Amino acid sequence: MAYTTPLLFPSSPSYSSLSIASNNSLKLARRAARVLIMAAASSDADVPPNKTTKLVTFLGKGGSGKTTSAVFAAQMLLEPLKRLKEADARLNMTQGVLEGVVGEELGVLPGMDTIFSALALENLVGFLRNMSQMNRDRDKFDIIVYDGVSTEETIRMIGATSKARLYLKYLRHLSERTDLGRLAGPSLLRLADEAISLSSRGSNLNGKLSTEIWDDLELTLERGSSVFVEQSRFGCYLVMDPENPVSVNAALRYWGCAIQAGAQVSGALGIVSPNSSVESTETVKNNFSPLPYCPIPPPLLGSPPDWNEIMLYKISEDARELLSLKRTNSNLIVPSVQFNVAKKTVNLFMPGFDKSEIKLYQFRGGSELLVEAGDQRRIIRLPSQIQGKVAGAKFSDRSLVITLR
Amino acid sequence: MAYTTPLLFPSSPSYSSLSIASNNSLKLARRAARVLIMAAASSDADVPPNKTTKLVTFLGKGGSGKTTSAVFAAQMLLEPLKRLKEADARLNMTQGVLEGVVGEELGVLPGMDTIFSALALENLVGFLRNMSQMNRDRDKFDIIVYDGVSTEETIRMIGATSKARLYLKYLRHLSERTDLGRLAGPSLLRLADEAISLSSRGSNLNGKLSTEIWDDLELTLERGSSVFVEQSRFGCYLVMDPENPVSVNAALRYWGCAIQAGAQVSGALGIVSPNSSVESTETVKNNFSPLPYCPIPPPLLGSPPDWNEIMLYKISEDARELLSLKRTNSNLIVPSVQFNVAKKTVNLFMPGFDKSEIKLYQFRGGSELLVEAGDQRRIIRLPSQIQGKVAGAKFSDRSLVITLR
Repeated sequence: MAYTTPLLFPSSPSYSSLSIASNNSLKLARRAARVLIMAAASSDADVPPNKTTKLVTFLGKGGSGKTTSAVFAAQMLLEPLKRLKEADARLNMTQGVLEGVVGEELGVLPGMDTIFSALALENLVGFLRNMSQMNRDRDKFDIIVYDGVSTEETIRMIGATSKARLYLKYLRHLSERTDLGRLAGPSLLRLADEAISLSSRGSNLNGKLSTEIWDDLELTLERGSSVFVEQSRFGCYLVMDPENPVSVNAALRYWGCAIQAGAQVSGALGIVSPNSSVESTETVKNNFSPLPYCPIPPPLLGSPPDWNEIMLYKISEDARELLSLKRTNSNLIVPSVQFNVAKKTVNLFMPGFDKSEIKLYQFRGGSELLVEAGDQRRIIRLPSQIQGKVAGAKFSDRSLVITLR
Repeated sequence: MAYTTPLLFPSSPSYSSLSIASNNSLKLARRAARVLIMAAASSDADVPPNKTTKLVTFLGKGGSGKTTSAVFAAQMLLEPLKRLKEADARLNMTQGVLEGVVGEELGVLPGMDTIFSALALENLVGFLRNMSQMNRDRDKFDIIVYDGVSTEETIRMIGATSKARLYLKYLRHLSERTDLGRLAGPSLLRLADEAISLSSRGSNLNGKLSTEIWDDLELTLERGSSVFVEQSRFGCYLVMDPENPVSVNAALRYWGCAIQAGAQVSGALGIVSPNSSVESTETVKNNFSPLPYCPIPPPLLGSPPDWNEIMLYKISEDARELLSLKRTNSNLIVPSVQFNVAKKTVNLFMPGFDKSEIKLYQFRGGSELLVEAGDQRRIIRLPSQIQGKVAGAKFSDRSLVITLR
């Protein structure tokens, strides 16, 4: 397979049909809001049949190099509605009411943008699908670059599948354990399952039991949340201006937030200017160690960039190496949670956070630890040997060390 | 009442307790994510009892002066859940399942941030409440400054109430006209109404009919959407760098988007630098005419600003005048829709848009026109004299002129 250089493309509409001179196996397509795709030609002979798509995203303070783009979320509203209508036409659940909904009249409400971007992204990346479902898909991409509405929202998207599992659990309880749920639950579940089946698995009309559908959904979300720690399928890079302490501190914190959301960060990128100092580079390298750090020339992230010039930069080679498909820095990853049975401690790696910003809760006796930092929550199940109540916690070298008794 | 200067405060946490020297009747409180509040002391004797709160927001391309802030949306999750639990405790609908939900475990999913910001904002501004409800509120603010996650999301928030009316209509149909809806609808509606009542109107347990609750909800959204064209209650300003054509064009388009979302823009602000030219100022003034345009010194929107210095700037006086509570530029507002019965035309003022980007639909014969531009949709009801099918449309002086037959 031709080697695919994963460059960063500003999401300006003018790049929607960009192709780089002298390498015409590269394609760049703009398929959906905030999703940029760069792919090797799918006709290459040596693409393994089970090859998965890697998702790449960049976290950084606004103005540090991330780009923003407008979204045509209104168009995206129509597709889920169309599927629901088709499912309803088979099941005849809403007696024509759903059929009468004019999708074109419905506007985009706050928050929908991110939700539809996530759906569009899942369509392309297929994190929630299993292997046999993925192989049926026609569009194949090596890398998809996601440029979110904001870093906070991108982090929320990363954490969505693991967070959604708890919502699903409670929804299942409501559906199975209340009179109203037992009455309405199976029909609604059937409609939703039929609508999903139409697109990914073909019609399902013969019907599964409600318990099977719930189990399926749980399995799907579990599969989704496991992807974000696999470096071959998810790449997450911190972007910063090494001369600006606010930008550097924001990147440190986003590192901690990404870990807290259940993802691994693969590297750090500094946008260097002509007056960048050697000192600042060293400071940043220390701050982000053991993450690989790489300077990036400003035009690479500027607008409009001169791609031919960028390709010639010596400095870009390190960045290309860092971002490349082949590199997986598994030996450079700091484990986000470490248990010490002898000392009865839990070590949480949380760069960018201060002890005062982290809250610890225990709701199910001593078997779990709920960690709240920023707007992200994470549940840590404790091994049986160190289960107990929290006795104390102290911050040491970017980690919170929690002692249990 | 002491005159309140509505300054723009970057939403850095360090400003949460800022008070400006020499004017100690000013208070700045940070109550909720992305909502900054500046208020005159509520003890002032001459505050009229029916005084409403004005909401102010700024639209502009990222980096043009808007600030971003982190949100503690996770904390906001708990309040609605608490209300739902209280309502459920009275109605006993979920047989204890809702009571068992540990809110602290639930994470923030994509899109929730904006939704919770909107709820927090409504709590402060009270756009959805009627006068008698507003007078019961203890906290009174003259002006609330909203700094959204992005300009696109701020515009969506502005359009939310008018968009939500259609969703509500279809939801009502589903609830009233399907077997499932007739079965489950009243209970769910009752739970939602009881949860809302607990906070704003006191308990409602004796019960309203479902139709009354639906009517109430419709009236509430109608009230909400009418606020955004009242200059005394809503101020919306375009922010741009006059030397940067991308920023100027983005501001023009946001003007069109705000109109399309159902709001009126009150003025345009240009962040001037020492090398700003007279030519660019004139060009921008022409582009945004008849909106009042005002230059702003960069430190006013920079971070961290020196407020004492800013207060001394001569240039800030015009900006203060433009942003002031007293000024309402009703004579400077271009009507967003104008009907010409004689010519059978509809004139839609849509700055920043190109004819090719605007889609027109007609779904209910010739009585309505659905206008789609960007990700916003707007329904225009036609007066009976000019109802008919669209015969043609042309763009002229920032307006789309549609001819009907």
